[in-house]
Amino acid sequence: MPGTVQSIERAAAVLRLLAAAPNGLGVADLANALGLAKTTVHGILRTLHQVGFVDQDHSGAHYHLSDAFGRLGESYLDPNELRSRAINWADSLASRSGEVVRVGRLVEGKVMVVHHVFRPDDSDQDLDVGTTLPPHATALGKAVLAFDTSGAARPRVLEAFTTRTITDPAKLLEELATVRASGWATEFEEHTVELAGIAAPIRGLGGLVVGAVGLAGRIERICDSRLRHRGDLVSMVRATADAIARDLRDDS
Amino acid sequence: MPGTVQSIERAAAVLRLLAAAPNGLGVADLANALGLAKTTVHGILRTLHQVGFVDQDHSGAHYHLSDAFGRLGESYLDPNELRSRAINWADSLASRSGEVVRVGRLVEGKVMVVHHVFRPDDSDQDLDVGTTLPPHATALGKAVLAFDTSGAARPRVLEAFTTRTITDPAKLLEELATVRASGWATEFEEHTVELAGIAAPIRGLGGLVVGAVGLAGRIERICDSRLRHRGDLVSMVRATADAIARDLRDDS
Repeated sequence: MPGTVQSIERAAAVLRLLAAAPNGLGVADLANALGLAKTTVHGILRTLHQVGFVDQDHSGAHYHLSDAFGRLGESYLDPNELRSRAINWADSLASRSGEVVRVGRLVEGKVMVVHHVFRPDDSDQDLDVGTTLPPHATALGKAVLAFDTSGAARPRVLEAFTTRTITDPAKLLEELATVRASGWATEFEEHTVELAGIAAPIRGLGGLVVGAVGLAGRIERICDSRLRHRGDLVSMVRATADAIARDLRDDS
Repeated sequence: MPGTVQSIERAAAVLRLLAAAPNGLGVADLANALGLAKTTVHGILRTLHQVGFVDQDHSGAHYHLSDAFGRLGESYLDPNELRSRAINWADSLASRSGEVVRVGRLVEGKVMVVHHVFRPDDSDQDLDVGTTLPPHATALGKAVLAFDTSGAARPRVLEAFTTRTITDPAKLLEELATVRASGWATEFEEHTVELAGIAAPIRGLGGLVVGAVGLAGRIERICDSRLRHRGDLVSMVRATADAIARDLRDDS
């Protein structure tokens, strides 16, 4: 059939059969019912399992719809999962860049810091994990806000933290479109005077943005002499986001 | 990622975003959020619409999860839809075979006749539409029972209608395995003495069996001199089932 995707039709058929089978079904049951090869059904089930729609029983022989499938609109990635996948890559980014690194995700309209690596020097620093950042005023925030579709995250009143904070909603929408087009977000004295930042979204299965990783530091270290964000740091941040995403996809 | 299906991951991501967006989302919203081309997202949405998971608003600009998506385990094909797609093909099968043709679907453990074409002669016949047939004792019933996974349809007590009715559950399972392997089902005096039948499953999107079509008549017309079901009739029935399935998939 032109314009449709056969594997999605098959996945939908599997979900319907599982929904109607309170005791779960095995690979052979599904293959028989749908007239498909067992290997085909196994690939579909494996994918549905990885996206969190389907669970296996203890023996591994039967599949059933997951509890999360009934609560689809809720965030599906355990914050601890994001954090544990991000730790090594964030550490590496901090040591290579010499800057503070944070990993965050959108929670009720704010960016919650789920991991924080101190700047690798001996300065006094406070642990940010568990605190929230304003999404419109930080690179980390803009990197997730740009890909949010729930609307819940779009702040109604844009609080000014400095004279450079974007407080005009139309201007913010423009800025987020730029983030989507470039694939990374910037911060330039918008949250704290003299500080700049760079962040990139972390894409989970199917392209879902599940969080962002970014670094922040003094303008003279983050930006070049013409006050542009340094290309080498941008590349490092983006590569870090991609590496975390790969880890999430491979092991989820 | 080896062993998983990218288009299913993407469809899952689309479903999650729609579940979290009470006002629906447009193609561009989803494409932006997932970092996919609009044409890719459109193909996914079209498929999700055809399998009944997603609806469009009146303007066609926004998509949202369908009500049916919340009731996945229920039968998703409107019986009138099956009937309307089947009418022309069933008529054609009756006139070419000279036999009674029925289209049925599984409803609460019975085969409900949704369409019935009289044998094309002048004999007295009663309209069967809306009546139910025992699935274990008819070709039409076995053709759907063989692909049922809900368990609800498997009759606990196998009522005997003739001395040839299969009343042993183990024997019935064997018979259904034969139906799955061959792709068509037979009946030989199992429901009514001197009558035989041939039926084939109708597969909707993704391979889901949504009903069956079959013919029935006197043994001497349905079977050859060695009491085997006639190959030309089997081919006609299977081709009819496939034609109905194609119509269902193209227009759903």
